[in-house]
Amino acid sequence: MSDDAVSPRIIRKKTGHFLEDFAPGQVFRHKGGKTITEGLFTTFTEFAMTTHPLAKNARYARAYGFEGLVCPPGLVMLVAFSQTVEDVSENARANLEYIDMKFGAPVYVGDTIEVETKVLGLRLSSSRPNLGIVHVQSTARKNIGEAGEAIVATWQRKVQVYKSDETASIENFEVPADEIECELWLPAYDAQAKLAELAHLSSGDSYFEDLEPGTRIEHSRGRTMTDEHISMTAILDNTSQVHCNQYMIDLNPKQYVGGQLIVFGGIPFTLCLGLSCPDVGDNALGDVIYTTGKHTAPLQAGDTVFAATEILDKRDMPGREDLGIVSTRLFGYKFVRAEGEASDDAPEGWKKVQIFELDRQLAVKRRSHYA
Amino acid sequence: MSDDAVSPRIIRKKTGHFLEDFAPGQVFRHKGGKTITEGLFTTFTEFAMTTHPLAKNARYARAYGFEGLVCPPGLVMLVAFSQTVEDVSENARANLEYIDMKFGAPVYVGDTIEVETKVLGLRLSSSRPNLGIVHVQSTARKNIGEAGEAIVATWQRKVQVYKSDETASIENFEVPADEIECELWLPAYDAQAKLAELAHLSSGDSYFEDLEPGTRIEHSRGRTMTDEHISMTAILDNTSQVHCNQYMIDLNPKQYVGGQLIVFGGIPFTLCLGLSCPDVGDNALGDVIYTTGKHTAPLQAGDTVFAATEILDKRDMPGREDLGIVSTRLFGYKFVRAEGEASDDAPEGWKKVQIFELDRQLAVKRRSHYA
Amino acid sequence: MSDDAVSPRIIRKKTGHFLEDFAPGQVFRHKGGKTITEGLFTTFTEFAMTTHPLAKNARYARAYGFEGLVCPPGLVMLVAFSQTVEDVSENARANLEYIDMKFGAPVYVGDTIEVETKVLGLRLSSSRPNLGIVHVQSTARKNIGEAGEAIVATWQRKVQVYKSDETASIENFEVPADEIECELWLPAYDAQAKLAELAHLSSGDSYFEDLEPGTRIEHSRGRTMTDEHISMTAILDNTSQVHCNQYMIDLNPKQYVGGQLIVFGGIPFTLCLGLSCPDVGDNALGDVIYTTGKHTAPLQAGDTVFAATEILDKRDMPGREDLGIVSTRLFGYKFVRAEGEASDDAPEGWKKVQIFELDRQLAVKRRSHYA
Repeated sequence: MSDDAVSPRIIRKKTGHFLEDFAPGQVFRHKGGKTITEGLFTTFTEFAMTTHPLAKNARYARAYGFEGLVCPPGLVMLVAFSQTVEDVSENARANLEYIDMKFGAPVYVGDTIEVETKVLGLRLSSSRPNLGIVHVQSTARKNIGEAGEAIVATWQRKVQVYKSDETASIENFEVPADEIECELWLPAYDAQAKLAELAHLSSGDSYFEDLEPGTRIEHSRGRTMTDEHISMTAILDNTSQVHCNQYMIDLNPKQYVGGQLIVFGGIPFTLCLGLSCPDVGDNALGDVIYTTGKHTAPLQAGDTVFAATEILDKRDMPGREDLGIVSTRLFGYKFVRAEGEASDDAPEGWKKVQIFELDRQLAVKRRSHYA
Repeated sequence: MSDDAVSPRIIRKKTGHFLEDFAPGQVFRHKGGKTITEGLFTTFTEFAMTTHPLAKNARYARAYGFEGLVCPPGLVMLVAFSQTVEDVSENARANLEYIDMKFGAPVYVGDTIEVETKVLGLRLSSSRPNLGIVHVQSTARKNIGEAGEAIVATWQRKVQVYKSDETASIENFEVPADEIECELWLPAYDAQAKLAELAHLSSGDSYFEDLEPGTRIEHSRGRTMTDEHISMTAILDNTSQVHCNQYMIDLNPKQYVGGQLIVFGGIPFTLCLGLSCPDVGDNALGDVIYTTGKHTAPLQAGDTVFAATEILDKRDMPGREDLGIVSTRLFGYKFVRAEGEASDDAPEGWKKVQIFELDRQLAVKRRSHYA
Repeated sequence: MSDDAVSPRIIRKKTGHFLEDFAPGQVFRHKGGKTITEGLFTTFTEFAMTTHPLAKNARYARAYGFEGLVCPPGLVMLVAFSQTVEDVSENARANLEYIDMKFGAPVYVGDTIEVETKVLGLRLSSSRPNLGIVHVQSTARKNIGEAGEAIVATWQRKVQVYKSDETASIENFEVPADEIECELWLPAYDAQAKLAELAHLSSGDSYFEDLEPGTRIEHSRGRTMTDEHISMTAILDNTSQVHCNQYMIDLNPKQYVGGQLIVFGGIPFTLCLGLSCPDVGDNALGDVIYTTGKHTAPLQAGDTVFAATEILDKRDMPGREDLGIVSTRLFGYKFVRAEGEASDDAPEGWKKVQIFELDRQLAVKRRSHYA
């Protein structure tokens, strides 16, 4: 009997799906699920420099009619989105677009989030035969089968996925999206609640009356990302290796920007929401919808993130005289060294690079009713 | 219609107050507030290498008459102090002195801390026309308007703040501090509680009887700080940009020590308390007062922090024969490379630099009653 | 009176025990104890990329008959082991071997772990007169003196400890281990519970039927460690300075690999368990025993960890037709640069280095009963 005879048989499993694995209307019920612990809540709510009292101050949240501290929308998105990564985008080159991300029931510490995804479309790349765009619709529910079961978010996204076998023959397809009932839950307005007594806990100048269409707010604070992103990505169960496997990058550094790990896009997404919070977010009772959003450049450890918000439009909210809807566009930026280049919007020797953009509608309190 | 006509109007908000914004007796009710989650508790209690069973072991804490795990004083300080940063010191050059920091009710997971600050004084710098010293008194309460409402800490501090407009004309002023009732809450002594059965969970040689005035304890452990401080500072809602915005520093590196971010002072403050814990803290039932304290050199990522405690004095505690008051001075240190310099207290090629000092009184258990 | 007369007397305490401090049969009741917070749970469960629904999804855990989220065995080990470091291995050169680590009652958030250790043996090194091997047996209990008191883990280990005084005369000894009742608690099987409805939440191909003796699974994911390990080690109360005191290493860099801090072994231990989870762990109801394990090379910040599992054997579990016992060997690896060396199992310019190995038996669900 040779030595070989006793060597174990080697198994190398593929993880995630490749382009040829997606079928029209196919539904993935994602593995895992995730209970929101206070550890997760703290890590993500607060890394982003969120200033929203609903996410910081349980007394305030209860006075407003919530059960306790409320997960900010960035955290709901991070948890729900990450559940879909293994099935949808573990073998992706890039996430191209977020579409119609809507929020429903509030998420509290202790809630368990589970997500399913329907495959809506596939379109082969004309220029790159090993790639195609997959279009999916995902829905996140909380506390399935329990009293508080509810939809907490639903969204579509388009993602560029690699083939496993470059010679595989694949057909384009497109099926209609499902109609998902997902409307932002809001506590009823109670004029007797004396919420004005808590008005000092949020910004004094970010009410509905303050946000003027045609203005752009350059949020004052920046935040440097460190390699903390590796741990944060793992905490989210996001299994994509470009975020956490430096050895893979070292083997082939030219294929990756600067030979460095890339920060998971959900992290600058959430950080931009946080940086904008004192100026446009902390008097919102919730985020209604993100109609479209995308990453326009990668983020890496060492970069400092800044944000700006354009106020696009505002309107009454039907049935809620205490609130109004504000349409905004949120931008994320970083600055990179660029010796010899001159630019209006960066100091000499630097170039301003947009990394993110998101069309975002918020349900914002009126000063007339709350302060 | 020109292109300019459709460009949005740019808004750049100032954040925080500048020297000319402070008025005698003015009161800031700080934004946000903060509920202590188990995530926050873990991050800060344990990063500091605290060994205190009241902060680690809920069984021990309950046996002593507390409701559960007790936030160590460093965490109470970090949370409460950070709430004041935007209003008081976002535009500060340096925090000069902590004065009469007193602790009151114990803080538990789930408690919500809110803080207000009264402006006591302002004194212009004689040598630097763009700076002045602001003197404030802050008080932190928990669970306002609820059954367990209580003061958890009160303190004064002096901080060097920049003018926004260097030509602004400002008058010095000084108003009296408020009398704040803030006495350390201590569980009653119960000789029947058999607490000696838990004595193995704390150090055997840090009782009142062990701490001898005229001695200095060099605490044996050191802890290297990493760029984790950026995330920790964000978690605390401390908005000062010198702690988290590397781009700002890269634009003007000579203005900052080594062109590096500076660690928020509350972090070495808490870390020194933690490093001292096995030798002087883990048989204290609480910290009574920090009469004065200051940072004497900055800390940066990569530095290793050490601590030492001088026992200054000890005395009986009125009404509590089971406890005594121990007055100490806590020091923080780091070592920096210094080729060619010789020194008694550092190895060759290194210099010992004091970074922190705090006059600290503790209420310490007597072995006679607890072991 | 000279200046010296008023200088304080300096006290430098020794921490931990040295070789000459260990006596046959001596029992240490370790200081501190540790309550599992949601912060601790999140930090360690999720850093390791664990995919086990029992540790992620409270709805799933409750449906299986647990009280809530279940601490994975790696976290139980990390917390329990770390409690023993000050007394057993603060002055150790290396941890040589883990022996017969058994798990008992499940550990939940809110449980308080306390640990005691019995000294079983001591054997002087024949080649290095300043070292010897200490053999100990540790047992971790939860909620001592309360309703749910139970043993959660017990194990032996051998550790190489330094003498304090090289000239000390020490005798070898060996005493018998205690018989510790520690059997893995498992929820009863309930055919009515419709657990198959939750089968999509765990891997579809890691049931008892799937795990074939004689195979070896190369787990697909890697995870780069950063200097986060310093903070993680502090959170665990592991007080060994080689993990967190860079200054100590800078004073004598040649004595330490690469002049760098060494990652606490419990961290790659847990990370390897996590990396293996989707392929061999997430359909186990528990880990029964780790008969032997050891670290075979150090891990440092910047290294990327990979894992593989050999399936050694499988057998029925007496009294549980729904489960079977699978014996495995878990390996951890990293790759280091090695220009000019050729090897079958690493790309050119790299060498594969085994860092860890653990003989591990799991109680694994049968597909026939659960899916």
